[in-house]
Amino acid sequence: MAQTETGVNRQIVLKRRPTGVVSEECFTLVEAPLTGPDELADGEALVRNIYLSVDPTQRGWISRDTYVPAIQPGEVIRSGSAGQVVASRSARLPEGTLVTGLTGWSEYAVVSGNVSPVAAGVDLRASMSVLGATGLTAYFGMLDIGRPRPGETVLVSGAAGATGSVAGQIARIQGARVVGLAGTAEKCAWLTGELGFTAAINYRRDDVPARLRETCPDGIDVYFDNVGGSLLELVLERIRLKARIVLCGAISQYSDEEPSPGPRNLMQLVIQRSRMEGFLVFDYLERYPEAVAQLSQWLRGGDLHYRVEIMEGLEAAPRALRALFTGGNTGKLLVQIAPEP
Amino acid sequence: MAQTETGVNRQIVLKRRPTGVVSEECFTLVEAPLTGPDELADGEALVRNIYLSVDPTQRGWISRDTYVPAIQPGEVIRSGSAGQVVASRSARLPEGTLVTGLTGWSEYAVVSGNVSPVAAGVDLRASMSVLGATGLTAYFGMLDIGRPRPGETVLVSGAAGATGSVAGQIARIQGARVVGLAGTAEKCAWLTGELGFTAAINYRRDDVPARLRETCPDGIDVYFDNVGGSLLELVLERIRLKARIVLCGAISQYSDEEPSPGPRNLMQLVIQRSRMEGFLVFDYLERYPEAVAQLSQWLRGGDLHYRVEIMEGLEAAPRALRALFTGGNTGKLLVQIAPEP
Repeated sequence: MAQTETGVNRQIVLKRRPTGVVSEECFTLVEAPLTGPDELADGEALVRNIYLSVDPTQRGWISRDTYVPAIQPGEVIRSGSAGQVVASRSARLPEGTLVTGLTGWSEYAVVSGNVSPVAAGVDLRASMSVLGATGLTAYFGMLDIGRPRPGETVLVSGAAGATGSVAGQIARIQGARVVGLAGTAEKCAWLTGELGFTAAINYRRDDVPARLRETCPDGIDVYFDNVGGSLLELVLERIRLKARIVLCGAISQYSDEEPSPGPRNLMQLVIQRSRMEGFLVFDYLERYPEAVAQLSQWLRGGDLHYRVEIMEGLEAAPRALRALFTGGNTGKLLVQIAPEP
Repeated sequence: MAQTETGVNRQIVLKRRPTGVVSEECFTLVEAPLTGPDELADGEALVRNIYLSVDPTQRGWISRDTYVPAIQPGEVIRSGSAGQVVASRSARLPEGTLVTGLTGWSEYAVVSGNVSPVAAGVDLRASMSVLGATGLTAYFGMLDIGRPRPGETVLVSGAAGATGSVAGQIARIQGARVVGLAGTAEKCAWLTGELGFTAAINYRRDDVPARLRETCPDGIDVYFDNVGGSLLELVLERIRLKARIVLCGAISQYSDEEPSPGPRNLMQLVIQRSRMEGFLVFDYLERYPEAVAQLSQWLRGGDLHYRVEIMEGLEAAPRALRALFTGGNTGKLLVQIAPEP
C-alpha cells in the first residue's frame, strides 16, 4: 500500500433529500476509517479514486427509488469513478491497475465486481466521458433506438452536454443532418464548429418554434431527448412519418417537486406512425466492448470530439452536480480528487 | 342496372364542424343526382352501399387534417362501407360483385381503386368488422407493435369495442393474460365470458387503480390503448421492463376542444426501458391477405368471436357515430342501408 494513505477515507454522504434544484446543503463531508490492506476479503481491492463523475441521474438517486434504490441519508453518494488499485486481494485487479466503475464520492473505495480495468493507452478522462457511461449512453441510444439514416434530420436536446454532444456526432457520422439545442451562444458555436452539427438552437434566447421550422424544414426523424418537458410537445408537432423519439433523460424535470404535465399531442405518434422509447445504458453491458472499440476508432480518425471540464477536490462534488442543472458546463464535468499517476 | 335505382343518391354531408361530443346537428341528408351507368368512366363501377361503417377516427376527419385531409362542410362523410356493384365499366368489378372499401355515407358510390371484392363465402358483416379495418387494426397493432408473449399481461382499453375486443382475443391466443377495460357490467361479462379475457375492469364503476393492482399484480407488459387520456398515466405507473404501449386511438380525447395534458410520468418509459408506438392500419395494406387468412382461421376454429350491432337506415349514421362516444355499443357498430342480396 502506498505511503500516501492516511488511515482516513473522506467521503460525501447524503444529509437530506433536495427540494428543487439540488444544493450543497444536501450533502456532508465525513471522515470514515480507511479499510486497511489486511481487512480486504478475498477478491476485493482498495481503490484510490482520481476522478468522480457527476451525472443528472444522481438527482433521481438522492430523491427516490428509480431504476436503482434511492440513496438513503447517511449513505455515500453513489457515482461513477476512475481510480487506481492501491491494495489488492484480487487477481483480476493487481495493485497499480487503473479502473473505472460505480463506486461513490469518496477518496477510497473497496471494490470487487463493480469496477473494470482501463485498457492500456486509454486516456483516463476519456474513459470517464466519451468512452464511459455518457458516451456509451449516446452510442446505444442513438444507434439502437434512434437509428438515424443518411439524410434524415436528427434533433438533440442538451446537445452540449456529455451525452448529447456525443449522440449528435454519432448521428452526423451516420450521415444525418443534426440540429442541437443548447443554452449559450458559446455552446451553440461549439456544436456547429468543432462538432460539425448542421445547426444549433439557443433555447434560452431563440424563438424555438421558429428556429425548429428553419432548421428542420422537412420535419424531425429522430429526437434524442435529454431534457424532457415542454420541448417534447413542440417536437411532436414536427415529427415526420416513422419518427423515433429516444427518451434518454429529462434534466429539465428532475428538480420539480410536482411532476409536470406531459405533451398534449401524443396522438402525433399515431398520425405519424412514430415511436417513443426509453433505455438505460446498463442493459447493454455485454456490448460495451463493441461500443468502446467503435467510439475509439472514431476518436482516432478525428470524426468524434469531446470536451471534459474539471472541478478540483472532493468538496467540489456537490457544486459540480448543481452546475449540471444550472447550465454551467459544456461536455463532461468531472471532479478530480487525486493526481493521475 | 337493377330496377330499384331511382335516379337519386341520398347522402349525408358535413353541415358544420362539431364542438364537444359529435351530434346529429353537424350533418345534413341531401339528395344528389345518381350517376347513370352511361356516365361511368372506363374502370369505374357504381356500388349500392349495404353497410356503412362508423368509427371513432371519423370524429377527427370532420374536425381537422390528420393523417388524411379534413372533410370539408358540404362534402359527403368519408367512411368504410360494404356494397354491391350495380353497374360497371370495370373488368375487376363486374355487376353483382360484393365489395368493401372506403366510400362514404351515401346510398351509392362511384368507385374504382378504392374498393376490393369480398372473397366468396365471407360474411359481409364479418368483412366490415373482424375481417375489416377494425379487425386488421387489432391484428397488426397487437402482433406487430404489442408482440405479446405467453404468460405476459396485456391490458386493453376500449376492450368491448370493435378493435379492442379483437385485439384482446389475439393476445389471449398468443398465450397472454388479458385484462380489458370497458364501461358497463354487461360488456365486462362479455369480455370474461365469450371472449375469454382473464379479467375485466369497469372503468365507470370500479376503483381503477385498485383493480389494476389486483388484475395485473406483476405489472403490465403490453397496453393496447384505444382511449388515451388519464388512464395512460395510471398504466405507466404499472408497466414492466421492456413494456410496449400500442397507441391505437384516443377516443376519450377526440371530443375535447382543448387538448388535455399528457401523462406526467413519461420517464417511466426510461426507468422501465419501454416503448410507446403509434400505427395506422393503412400502412399494412400489403399484408391484409395474411391477416384476413389468419383471422379467418381463428374464426373457423372457434378461437375468435365478434359481435356486430346494427342500426337501420342512412339517417341513423350520425346517431351511430355519436353512440361510439357515449359508450352505447358493444363490438362493431354498423349502419345498414340496404338488404343483403
